[in-house]
Amino acid sequence: MAKEEKKQGFVEHITPRDVDFSQWYTDVIKMTELCDYSPVRGCMVMRPYGYAIWERIQAELDQRFKATGHENVAMPMLIPESLLLKEAEHVEGFAPEVAWVTHGGTEELTERLAVRPTSETIFCTMYSKWVQTWRDLPMKYNQWCSVMRWEKSTRPFLRTSEFWWQEGHTIHATAEEAQEETLTMLEVYREVAENVLALPVICGRKSDKEKFAGARATYSIEAMMQDGKALQAGTSHNFGTNFAEAYDIQFQSKEGKLEYVHETSWGVSTRLIGAIIMTHGDERGLRLPPTIAPIQAVILPIAAHKPGVLEACEKLNEELKAAGLRVKLDDRDTVSAGFKFNDWELKGVPVRVEVGPRDLENGVVTIFRRDLCEKVTLPLEGLADAIKELLADIHKNLFEQAKAFRDNRTQTVSNMEELGEVVQTGFAKAMWCGSRECEDTIKEKFNATSRNMPFDQTPIGETCVCCGKKAEKLIYFAKAY
Amino acid sequence: MAKEEKKQGFVEHITPRDVDFSQWYTDVIKMTELCDYSPVRGCMVMRPYGYAIWERIQAELDQRFKATGHENVAMPMLIPESLLLKEAEHVEGFAPEVAWVTHGGTEELTERLAVRPTSETIFCTMYSKWVQTWRDLPMKYNQWCSVMRWEKSTRPFLRTSEFWWQEGHTIHATAEEAQEETLTMLEVYREVAENVLALPVICGRKSDKEKFAGARATYSIEAMMQDGKALQAGTSHNFGTNFAEAYDIQFQSKEGKLEYVHETSWGVSTRLIGAIIMTHGDERGLRLPPTIAPIQAVILPIAAHKPGVLEACEKLNEELKAAGLRVKLDDRDTVSAGFKFNDWELKGVPVRVEVGPRDLENGVVTIFRRDLCEKVTLPLEGLADAIKELLADIHKNLFEQAKAFRDNRTQTVSNMEELGEVVQTGFAKAMWCGSRECEDTIKEKFNATSRNMPFDQTPIGETCVCCGKKAEKLIYFAKAY
Repeated sequence: MAKEEKKQGFVEHITPRDVDFSQWYTDVIKMTELCDYSPVRGCMVMRPYGYAIWERIQAELDQRFKATGHENVAMPMLIPESLLLKEAEHVEGFAPEVAWVTHGGTEELTERLAVRPTSETIFCTMYSKWVQTWRDLPMKYNQWCSVMRWEKSTRPFLRTSEFWWQEGHTIHATAEEAQEETLTMLEVYREVAENVLALPVICGRKSDKEKFAGARATYSIEAMMQDGKALQAGTSHNFGTNFAEAYDIQFQSKEGKLEYVHETSWGVSTRLIGAIIMTHGDERGLRLPPTIAPIQAVILPIAAHKPGVLEACEKLNEELKAAGLRVKLDDRDTVSAGFKFNDWELKGVPVRVEVGPRDLENGVVTIFRRDLCEKVTLPLEGLADAIKELLADIHKNLFEQAKAFRDNRTQTVSNMEELGEVVQTGFAKAMWCGSRECEDTIKEKFNATSRNMPFDQTPIGETCVCCGKKAEKLIYFAKAY
Repeated sequence: MAKEEKKQGFVEHITPRDVDFSQWYTDVIKMTELCDYSPVRGCMVMRPYGYAIWERIQAELDQRFKATGHENVAMPMLIPESLLLKEAEHVEGFAPEVAWVTHGGTEELTERLAVRPTSETIFCTMYSKWVQTWRDLPMKYNQWCSVMRWEKSTRPFLRTSEFWWQEGHTIHATAEEAQEETLTMLEVYREVAENVLALPVICGRKSDKEKFAGARATYSIEAMMQDGKALQAGTSHNFGTNFAEAYDIQFQSKEGKLEYVHETSWGVSTRLIGAIIMTHGDERGLRLPPTIAPIQAVILPIAAHKPGVLEACEKLNEELKAAGLRVKLDDRDTVSAGFKFNDWELKGVPVRVEVGPRDLENGVVTIFRRDLCEKVTLPLEGLADAIKELLADIHKNLFEQAKAFRDNRTQTVSNMEELGEVVQTGFAKAMWCGSRECEDTIKEKFNATSRNMPFDQTPIGETCVCCGKKAEKLIYFAKAY
């Protein structure tokens, strides 16, 4: 019992968010056992509770990828250096953070192999081999894997040397189709972020400075964390014929001409778990969106030694499972009810069902909603349906809380002073001339970067927030993860 | 049309199995587009059709792992050399085939990192950190990932430098529990091999010579390919306290004593796809077991230009999908019906549903069973249920064909002459003294290895097939992949 009760002690010691948000994040991750540090620099271990969240996210995304006509494949994790070098911008962007394999067994390799930092180069190589005529197009492939980027400073889920993700890579016959694909997948990401993860996001196009190395255009979804910083939660790139030219991916058109394919790529990663923590978490720990919560409802027997209580809990457990809910009956007799309350609140389980002798007499249970930290009494009869409604409401509430928070901390700014102030606590919406110089100045002065140019470009002014020249674009600036 | 019809030509050119089995295998893999060679030595690309099979295998296994109390995690793909060196037998077994990362970005690393060839060493390191008392046990974790072994000669699916697999790693308080786990997971593998993949397998224990580097005991399931060679299709290892001692994984027992945990690991890989091909394939290509076939039934309109045919096909397509079948309507108008027949037979789709104007008049369809290459007529009404029954029967037939083949090619032998003859075409069941010397002799003379010692050890003689001394064990010998 000593060990568990010691853990209970920990629960009381989550650093408050307003004292040190970064320490709060670390505390929560450690205590919830989502992940752990590994003996490999900058690489994390995903523990069962963290990985179960990732599995739920994967399942939700994967079914949408398939519904939009994509197929999964698996590409090698190693990429010969010569392949990586073919597209100049791309190699410049990634070479500094590549881990290199130089030896196989006892032999030194004649050519170094990169542990993939991303797989455009290998997809391009294979596409160039596979595509012959317009009939082969489009090819819309995705892979689930981990990639490696030798990061200097790392934080679990947010920036690790190895991370887990999906990368979609597609080739198309026309520029229009590629652009449609780019935006379709951005919309899939928005829909999953909002409807599955309860993360309100801003969709838009990245500036040239912030776009992916080798892309003609990068689009992103941007979420706001509770410290007011932005987190890029997903990206979708249109490469045009940029990689096709470098990797010679040509096809014979209907008209019999040789043409380059138009290509896209898009990805989200385990970073989304960091976004969930930092968007919804509170002083008690996690608050998990019901759709991806590994446990949606935990059943706690109260006074479990009293006749009938444990039996009722077991029956309820089976009923709720049969109704398709992810339920856990916590019948541990080595810890107190109070310890269990803390433990499951820490772990962010959306609904706690308390079943005591008096409840049973009255044919009811006591329900604790993790999002509001409020109790309600519900009849045992029809409980599965009531919990499903509750979960839908919890999702809605988490989303609305996060959206209200973000909207409160988003302000339009028209000069550098205002911009400097607003990015201390949130997003600054500003007009911008489109020059990289102004982005550099803002980065230098306030450590803020442009996030994206939203699709709704209704102007809020006429001059650039930085240089005062004629403004071209509406854009968000923020400090970012 | 030229390209597709050229492909059709290819179909006629699968090398017959009895002419060159190895070339037949390569032809089938290439033409079915299950996988492709990559620009990285010994590494393959899994294409959509191959990966879809792997996804089905994953799903079937994963649900059984969870039902037996296992949880998924993700461990780093890189392992510091010092960790790999801790268990002597293990490092000796794997060091010669490790790919080494020596540089991160532009910096040379102070310690080399192995691209994981398997993950015992990293699981042990984490377990040593996570386990404190008997209350923490057992820990039963699994991961899905790819691993890298720098193989000298490679064959797609059977032996590639990178391959995809699952590796379960568990720790337990007692030797009994670890042994029970080892055998439980072997049984899961047997059940999946037989009931999902239609592969009859022999379960048993490996000889010391053939066991996993660092294991106290290795168990395997062994399948017979159509050239009579054995393929080790899955292994389950009991490590005893071997790794626990090397990695210091101790726990406080109920009695308050410090004790080493007892550990297991178990894995199957994309090799299973190779086993499916080489067990069930025929001169026309693949024959896929229905449970893992990406497409279970393909609908082909005959005389699709005739009124009502295409509409009837579309309606049927929706009906079969709604009934939970994986169906594809092949409504291509750029290729002939004959081409389509060949194409789907090549790809091993278990059932073909031909829908023509005359069939429709009579309220029937023509069904082609890929396993028997036979046609039957079935009523349109109630077709979904009829196809489900048919798929169950196809599975049963594939299994029984494979089992009859294996049983026909398995013979008991009592001397070296017989053994040498039998392993030319199949499995030799023999008595064995238990010495490594005899295994070495048999390997040297006949290029055959011991497969496993089956659980049923009813003796078939008294003396060792090789040295003639007192026999200790019943064991299988075969040439093997």
